[in-house]
Amino acid sequence: MIKNDLFLRALRGETVSRPPVWMMRQAGRYLPEFMAIREKYDFFTRCQTPELASEITVQPIRRYGMDAAILFSDILVIPQAMGIEVQMKPDFGPYLPHPIRSKKEVDAIRVPDAAEALDYVMQAIRMTKEKLADEVPLIGFAGSPWTILCYCVQGQGSKSFDKAKALCFSDPRAAHALLQKITDTTIDYLKAKVRAGVDAVQVFDSWGGMLSPEDYQEFSWHYIQQIIDALKEDTEVIVFGKGCWFALGEMAKSGASAIGIDWTCSARNARYLTGGKITLQGNFDPARLLSPPDEITRRVTEMIRAFGKDRYIANLGHGILPNIPLENARAFVDAVKNFKE
Amino acid sequence: MIKNDLFLRALRGETVSRPPVWMMRQAGRYLPEFMAIREKYDFFTRCQTPELASEITVQPIRRYGMDAAILFSDILVIPQAMGIEVQMKPDFGPYLPHPIRSKKEVDAIRVPDAAEALDYVMQAIRMTKEKLADEVPLIGFAGSPWTILCYCVQGQGSKSFDKAKALCFSDPRAAHALLQKITDTTIDYLKAKVRAGVDAVQVFDSWGGMLSPEDYQEFSWHYIQQIIDALKEDTEVIVFGKGCWFALGEMAKSGASAIGIDWTCSARNARYLTGGKITLQGNFDPARLLSPPDEITRRVTEMIRAFGKDRYIANLGHGILPNIPLENARAFVDAVKNFKE
Repeated sequence: MIKNDLFLRALRGETVSRPPVWMMRQAGRYLPEFMAIREKYDFFTRCQTPELASEITVQPIRRYGMDAAILFSDILVIPQAMGIEVQMKPDFGPYLPHPIRSKKEVDAIRVPDAAEALDYVMQAIRMTKEKLADEVPLIGFAGSPWTILCYCVQGQGSKSFDKAKALCFSDPRAAHALLQKITDTTIDYLKAKVRAGVDAVQVFDSWGGMLSPEDYQEFSWHYIQQIIDALKEDTEVIVFGKGCWFALGEMAKSGASAIGIDWTCSARNARYLTGGKITLQGNFDPARLLSPPDEITRRVTEMIRAFGKDRYIANLGHGILPNIPLENARAFVDAVKNFKE
Repeated sequence: MIKNDLFLRALRGETVSRPPVWMMRQAGRYLPEFMAIREKYDFFTRCQTPELASEITVQPIRRYGMDAAILFSDILVIPQAMGIEVQMKPDFGPYLPHPIRSKKEVDAIRVPDAAEALDYVMQAIRMTKEKLADEVPLIGFAGSPWTILCYCVQGQGSKSFDKAKALCFSDPRAAHALLQKITDTTIDYLKAKVRAGVDAVQVFDSWGGMLSPEDYQEFSWHYIQQIIDALKEDTEVIVFGKGCWFALGEMAKSGASAIGIDWTCSARNARYLTGGKITLQGNFDPARLLSPPDEITRRVTEMIRAFGKDRYIANLGHGILPNIPLENARAFVDAVKNFKE
């Protein structure tokens, strides 16, 4: 039994004394203790070494006492497990030297045994669960198949992911074959994570908001729904699609336990578009953590009032930025923990 | 009198036989005749030489016969006129070597006589009008003050414009002082453009969708409204905010003649959110021009049916991409021109 089960209770829609709080990318570069590890080990060493990944995961919990931990890892471990080379270049981000651009290249990709190929993640989960000692729940995550396709095809980050979209729109059969392979791998991976001990999973659709509503259904949502269907009996599933306000109605009916909201969608719009009954998570603008701490406290309190304290998980609307002062991150977490109706 | 006045009639909400069509960035890199000029002259030479800017402006009209031309220029001529150095680096984009980061730096910026400082734009307008010979209307444009601030403060393009937002959120007085100076310059500039002969103006808020609805009102919309108020008696004003679906209601009541819509907002949502009475412009996903021409024709026809032929201007949901085949761009324009109810 988890001692602080606020997060799980909010996911189940139960009445709570205050909303739970965590921050996307809370194990990140704004923390000096994270930077100390980052100076010594490169990105994939940190991901692939269970001692490091588990240590990084619990760092923000020790400092701020969030109500949930999220396993330090990366969405691109999935293409790596599928045999696609992924590099993390300093000051550049992910770089895939052999991007997938044709049906033939898609056909050559294998669907691995994800539990085996990503055993280091499972070890990191078990080690993190020991360190957390049932104090708070642990979240596991994966990228959405569309978001993973974006990197596999584009080969790097992009403002428009034009090459990824070019494959979808000029050769939809190739795109769908790739999406299905990514989906199958992701389901296998998330099921293994649940067996290893995570208490909930979150699917990040970082680039879903680049698609029109119709294309989103075809190239992104169709596959996220497969993941939810495969996982929802085993664990709580949170879906977060950045810029995907137009799909919130569909998401609310999907069987997911909660829907992540970004800061461009007001609490009122989010409740309206999701039908008012499902747990929502979000949606503080990460850049608003650059406001003075007093203002952060005021704005967080307003945000909770706008969403309502129940069926709500306080979070940012995207990952925390590297340049956020420590006291500002604290103001965010504490404002939620001190919330009174 | 303009011979083909479909575009102006759609802006005035009149009944038309078919919607007018143009494409954002239609004078751009997908055109071989544009590339031929680009090989010889750098970016700002093209902007600042009326012979070149006017030639580039009319190139797409000659090839495809769109219903409106848009003057070749750049939104960053405004900070240049304000004395802020702007470079255009190949394979990098805009670079401002001395970004504005403090109230003191804002206070040092001058509000120029825009008609004088940007006289080359006025000359380009007069030369373009001669070349167009009243066949189709000419659109002039400016960036929104918020979007211009993004570049002035960040110093370059960005996925999050974190430094721009940092100024707004940590020193709002400095941000507002800068926004007002940009606004005053922009109003002066657009009024001069109207005097020089443009038939309509469009305000591009490319980065408005990075702000929460509340921050959008404070840091972006407040200034766009000033521009509309100052211009609407003189000309037709189109406002396009990428990712700004949440502000469409406000935009519809602003006095603008038309509102630009991006492809993440369906025609139905766009009509609903704007109250169904104002002219809308958009919203084909630029990457969908990578589909085969037959499919483009089918999708464009569907798009017109969804928006309705009246109070509608067919366009992309953002600028045309450099890698679009010529026949695909033609399929887009022709599908609109051949539209039958």
